[in-house]
Amino acid sequence: MNVTLSEHSPSVTDTQPAQQAKNVLYAQAGGVTAVINVSAAAVIETIQQHPEKFGKTYAAINGIKGVLEEELVDLTDISTATLAKLKYQPGAAFKACRFDLDPLEHNPEQYRRVLEVFKTYEIGYFLYNGGNGSMVTAQKVADYCCRHGHPVTCVGVAKTIDNDLALSHCSPGFGSAAKYLATSFLNATLDIIAMHETSTKFFVLEAMGRNTGWLTLATGLIKDVIPDAPIIILPAERPFNEQAFFDKVDHFIATQGYCVCAVSEGLVKENGDYISIANIEHTHERDYVQLGGVGATLAHLVGKHLNSKTHYAIPDYCQRSASHMVSQTDWQMAYDAGKEAVNAAFRGEHGVLPIIELTSTEPFEYRFKTVELNAVADLENTVPDHFLTEDGMDITQAALDYLRPLIQGEHGAPFKKGLPDIAPIAFTLVDKQLPAFKALK
Amino acid sequence: MNVTLSEHSPSVTDTQPAQQAKNVLYAQAGGVTAVINVSAAAVIETIQQHPEKFGKTYAAINGIKGVLEEELVDLTDISTATLAKLKYQPGAAFKACRFDLDPLEHNPEQYRRVLEVFKTYEIGYFLYNGGNGSMVTAQKVADYCCRHGHPVTCVGVAKTIDNDLALSHCSPGFGSAAKYLATSFLNATLDIIAMHETSTKFFVLEAMGRNTGWLTLATGLIKDVIPDAPIIILPAERPFNEQAFFDKVDHFIATQGYCVCAVSEGLVKENGDYISIANIEHTHERDYVQLGGVGATLAHLVGKHLNSKTHYAIPDYCQRSASHMVSQTDWQMAYDAGKEAVNAAFRGEHGVLPIIELTSTEPFEYRFKTVELNAVADLENTVPDHFLTEDGMDITQAALDYLRPLIQGEHGAPFKKGLPDIAPIAFTLVDKQLPAFKALK
Repeated sequence: MNVTLSEHSPSVTDTQPAQQAKNVLYAQAGGVTAVINVSAAAVIETIQQHPEKFGKTYAAINGIKGVLEEELVDLTDISTATLAKLKYQPGAAFKACRFDLDPLEHNPEQYRRVLEVFKTYEIGYFLYNGGNGSMVTAQKVADYCCRHGHPVTCVGVAKTIDNDLALSHCSPGFGSAAKYLATSFLNATLDIIAMHETSTKFFVLEAMGRNTGWLTLATGLIKDVIPDAPIIILPAERPFNEQAFFDKVDHFIATQGYCVCAVSEGLVKENGDYISIANIEHTHERDYVQLGGVGATLAHLVGKHLNSKTHYAIPDYCQRSASHMVSQTDWQMAYDAGKEAVNAAFRGEHGVLPIIELTSTEPFEYRFKTVELNAVADLENTVPDHFLTEDGMDITQAALDYLRPLIQGEHGAPFKKGLPDIAPIAFTLVDKQLPAFKALK
Repeated sequence: MNVTLSEHSPSVTDTQPAQQAKNVLYAQAGGVTAVINVSAAAVIETIQQHPEKFGKTYAAINGIKGVLEEELVDLTDISTATLAKLKYQPGAAFKACRFDLDPLEHNPEQYRRVLEVFKTYEIGYFLYNGGNGSMVTAQKVADYCCRHGHPVTCVGVAKTIDNDLALSHCSPGFGSAAKYLATSFLNATLDIIAMHETSTKFFVLEAMGRNTGWLTLATGLIKDVIPDAPIIILPAERPFNEQAFFDKVDHFIATQGYCVCAVSEGLVKENGDYISIANIEHTHERDYVQLGGVGATLAHLVGKHLNSKTHYAIPDYCQRSASHMVSQTDWQMAYDAGKEAVNAAFRGEHGVLPIIELTSTEPFEYRFKTVELNAVADLENTVPDHFLTEDGMDITQAALDYLRPLIQGEHGAPFKKGLPDIAPIAFTLVDKQLPAFKALK
């Protein structure tokens, strides 16, 4: 794969490049991926190549929350062994927060605190590894610091399993989750083929994806193995039409004896309501409606419709933390995302995000280019119409051609004593220099 | 590993060994495993070593149902390539039925038909690859044939992911499912560690296991990696005590900030009712109550209790068909189970099942010995008390020592173009020679 430097610099910090090395702060935010720590390793390794430019490397624990609370670790002298571990570690080694800063006008104290921490630790570069939403936070922080006399070069590091990152060909983290889901679905389909004549005739797998159906679509990759697989794909983008769905189930049962289905957790009815909302009567403190259960709902509906046994699987977090099922392509993209973020910072690009641009489909080649954080923040890249058949319930050849390269190659964690050789990594917090600050009320 | 021939022959067919080679019929029954086809390959390969004893090798499609319906394939000249595929194929390559013969007095026609098919195809050996329940079917068939002048040497081939096979050290199929669940649980635990401070504090994984908690227990293997993991294990054998459970959740949240839980699908209340029954208002034709959903129920209960976000995963069929996550130990046991069944047939042992006897714990060594089918049929091996801590919600060192060897080594399917190199195998049915017979009413 061909990874080049960016072609343009959308926004360069007003100040001249620092005469002396400034420190770097890296943090992770939002839902984790199987390869987010690969990006962390790349950030650290690339920084190490430029001692004239970059001073100490810090990571915040729990993203921006750790910045506020001065929960930092010093990675400047990280060991080779720990770096090697990061390259296989699922979850977020530095902990990822679901926590955003309040709007400046509502809570200026937060912003003053971030600035204070940045000044104290002489942070000149802020690298935020997150999804679309996290990019807003990164941009707000950097803007505030710049306006208050402490210019910080702020660069995003892309990650999300949802593949909803706007402008980018795809998102680091997606390929591995897609590989996990397609593999699981292929295995389960062989199970159903084996059993359906006297047992389960309908199986549904519920994939993550609140607003986008990319992960659901990825199960369609089993068509590369079983071209006529009786599969129904229900992405979040298309409202659920119960009659059309039942008709398709009936058709497959009649012609092939079974039907396998993949559904986005965020599947909605025609009126926009979610098909299934878990724990509806209590939402957690951040007032984030929790989804989950549409797989059970569909299995139940089809069971009644067919008067037959049905089954459903909900991989949930297992699909985004599968250390043993990492796509080599995705791993490399995650590494490149971290490396290119540091390269952008090196060039003094501020308020940017390196994204993936396809340069060749055959062979599959891409490069990174930077776009403004504002251009992608809070946008969502949904599954395009031509990736779904006319009935909206099946994958097209174009979608298969798009998805296939992203799951190529195996870069799973090595096994040790029967399990993936992964474990929580202990980092020592730096001694706090500032008064305590509580991020959560 | 040391695999020896059996020491004793509990029951030898009354007739003298056949002067000429008789044919073999192999079939698969009950829930599939990731390695059931490894046993099939072993049966075929071992038969090939004894052409003086064994004639043609047939497999029935859909277990005993395929015998009744004369849906047979001739494996005598199976290609090396197909044999190689069987060694990685999940599901049941010859299809596995959830179908048992009726009691003889209710439906003698079924037994006459089986005998007719056996006579037509000159079947002298019947190898039935299934769980405890399937062994009853195998025994009934063989007894009937013997009583009606067509002696058939009937040998079981053990398999079940549930590990509930009586008398045996463990069941072929369990080790791979255990490895899958422990790996998934370790990955997910690192996810929760990364996210719990601002997001999900409680995660529960629902494992298969209607009456036994072996698979649930296997998640406890993460203690080999994270010795103080705040894990709660709820096996099917122990009634659910909500207050004790909440107390333990609260303790872990207070001390470690998060809690991970594994629960058997068959978890029951003190009164013996299932905690959760899926699709309760319709049961499929065989009147088999379908479980599923206890994970969602627990996540919901804890969410209300903690007023916090919770998550649940239900791997469902993915845990028993994970071609990419096969334990080498389990793979070898599945191979040996098939091989030893043929060896028992070769010796003329009738009505037996080769089971696993541990001969050494350090190093881990076992051998097969045969026991009477009647001795294991319809029995269930449950998790012993000393494998659970006093509160019944945690794994003991003894259980870890028992489980660990079973997940050792990786024998997953090779990958091809991003997915496991597996696909449905097409077998050609032999031309039917008998009048049609419908097994299902």
